[in-house]
Amino acid sequence: MTHPLAILPTITFVDGAIEMIDQTQLPATYQVLRLTNVADHCAAIKRLSVRGAPALGVAGAFGLLLAVEERWPHGPYFDQAKGVSLDSFPGDVTRDELFAFIREQGDVIGATRPTAVNLGWAIEVLLSRVSDQATPHRILQTLFDGAVEIFEDDLKMCRALGAHGAELLPATGGVLTHCNTGALATGGYGTALGVVYAAKENGKHVHVYADETRPLLQGARLTAWECQRAGIPVTVLVEGAAATLLGQGKVSSVIVGADRIAANGDTANKIGTLGLAILAKRYGVPFYVAAPTSTIDRKLPDGSHIPIEQRDGEEVTNLYRQAIAPEGVDAFNPAFDVTPADLIAGIITERGVFTPPFRFHDME
Amino acid sequence: MTHPLAILPTITFVDGAIEMIDQTQLPATYQVLRLTNVADHCAAIKRLSVRGAPALGVAGAFGLLLAVEERWPHGPYFDQAKGVSLDSFPGDVTRDELFAFIREQGDVIGATRPTAVNLGWAIEVLLSRVSDQATPHRILQTLFDGAVEIFEDDLKMCRALGAHGAELLPATGGVLTHCNTGALATGGYGTALGVVYAAKENGKHVHVYADETRPLLQGARLTAWECQRAGIPVTVLVEGAAATLLGQGKVSSVIVGADRIAANGDTANKIGTLGLAILAKRYGVPFYVAAPTSTIDRKLPDGSHIPIEQRDGEEVTNLYRQAIAPEGVDAFNPAFDVTPADLIAGIITERGVFTPPFRFHDME
Repeated sequence: MTHPLAILPTITFVDGAIEMIDQTQLPATYQVLRLTNVADHCAAIKRLSVRGAPALGVAGAFGLLLAVEERWPHGPYFDQAKGVSLDSFPGDVTRDELFAFIREQGDVIGATRPTAVNLGWAIEVLLSRVSDQATPHRILQTLFDGAVEIFEDDLKMCRALGAHGAELLPATGGVLTHCNTGALATGGYGTALGVVYAAKENGKHVHVYADETRPLLQGARLTAWECQRAGIPVTVLVEGAAATLLGQGKVSSVIVGADRIAANGDTANKIGTLGLAILAKRYGVPFYVAAPTSTIDRKLPDGSHIPIEQRDGEEVTNLYRQAIAPEGVDAFNPAFDVTPADLIAGIITERGVFTPPFRFHDME
Repeated sequence: MTHPLAILPTITFVDGAIEMIDQTQLPATYQVLRLTNVADHCAAIKRLSVRGAPALGVAGAFGLLLAVEERWPHGPYFDQAKGVSLDSFPGDVTRDELFAFIREQGDVIGATRPTAVNLGWAIEVLLSRVSDQATPHRILQTLFDGAVEIFEDDLKMCRALGAHGAELLPATGGVLTHCNTGALATGGYGTALGVVYAAKENGKHVHVYADETRPLLQGARLTAWECQRAGIPVTVLVEGAAATLLGQGKVSSVIVGADRIAANGDTANKIGTLGLAILAKRYGVPFYVAAPTSTIDRKLPDGSHIPIEQRDGEEVTNLYRQAIAPEGVDAFNPAFDVTPADLIAGIITERGVFTPPFRFHDME
């Protein structure tokens, strides 16, 4: 499956190591990091070199492959294009030792971003698949196949989601979006922005309005960069200008991604999403969430149960190592907020568009 | 009248020169500029070393004093604390020559910020007062008295406004504010933030939550700095986090300033204010505007008649000369927005608190 945009895969596994676009450096510098150990990979996840719920699922899966490469450095054992090569894997490693190691590393990697459900989900899926494999070689082959499947399923999922969402858009119109939900947030197509890409592929004319998305500016840095490369007209705005934009009737829909969706439809997403949903309601503009069904956490009855990661205040008070607030000042910096289901017109998934009332409790 | 805070006056006239806090350097550096000629003063106004409508009025008035000091350098003639000393003022300067010179310099200073109403207003007030003075000494004494009066009236206005607003605040609570409306925006006390200072002087415990206020970050840079120096607990947040903050019940009122208020109460203020008002409504938190009655434009029936300045997109796409969006990307950057009167719980002025329905058409 090829990438539809002029964008390299966000994250890949090449010759025993993870390669990822360092999104912290965009748009000034386009740099691909090569990570050869779990500590560096965890650090990259924490500082958001890779981010976005679906991409984090892939990062979790690839992290387990990397852990094996680091612990038994006679590889490389894995390469996304070339497949698995276990000839040099030590013969004295027992099945139980290997499984315990993978599980332990899964805990380490999964703890880097507590709100991101896909990270833990991908790790759990792989652990569950390898748990009944009888030999180290079978475990490693299954781990690799599962990781590649998560990567490819993400691309398939995004394309299906995009196709469903594109039907909601008029032939010409503005879409206001928040954070980055495009190719960079996924294996390579996007969720909310994937809807825009699909609409473009269907011949629709969409103008993207990208909330800059403080504190980390993913909208200004990443969404604008992606749209430019994909040939989609894009206008950046500060969050404070969204109400004026919506009031001017320039936007036919607001589409955002999701980090976790509760069974009743309450949705955790990047800080600033909730405010946008309230503004959209005031101006009668439909507010959509675009996310794979893997983002839906059926066990959570509602959004009040979603843990919200509080991040370092320095993300707010410093920008590119320049202080933008006086030294020592306190900052309120939740990474996510929870939008109540009553503000959501529809949840766009790879299976179709769900409309209220959302009842995901017994979804298959 | 002394300054209530541990903040030097934003701008003063000392021993024949203007001294002002260089606000472009805050919060990294606290530097007081001493300006001894009109060209430097105009440059300081243009680059926003001094800003905020009331403070610009004072800057205009003091600029005329400075022009006299520069043209006839046998002074100093003026000092805000010591008064006027004209013994060394040249005897051969005629009344008409002096008046023509002051008027010409008023044009130069007034042209630095053509849209800032208070700058031109202060210069006009002083020119009108000195126009009927018969001697150079009478002109200079009147000029000085008028300039000091503009400075002191601003402080009195702020204190009266603050006292009225402080009554609205509970004994303990959080106030969410936007942009900078404090001492730095005025002669030295503030409007919306003046309410907080007055509440503190009344023994109330206020925690200020300061919207960072993109694109120019006046909240993070200036409001946070002022509060720190005034000993008021302050927390900075990105605009996108305001909905979460309001939802958590940490804020008992939102108080903002105003650039222009229409006769029906519709209020133009820094971009981001409208969104904040909509969020406050959703969460049942009272939303107040704090501004002198001089901000009320009785001739405008409603907010749709307020012209909104569109500013350069580079304010959004660049920060401290660092690109935060890809090169050439379009940005939507209105400097102000208009909050409809139905979202405003009260307008706090030096004459008291006006509550809806607002009917300023025939206000005296």
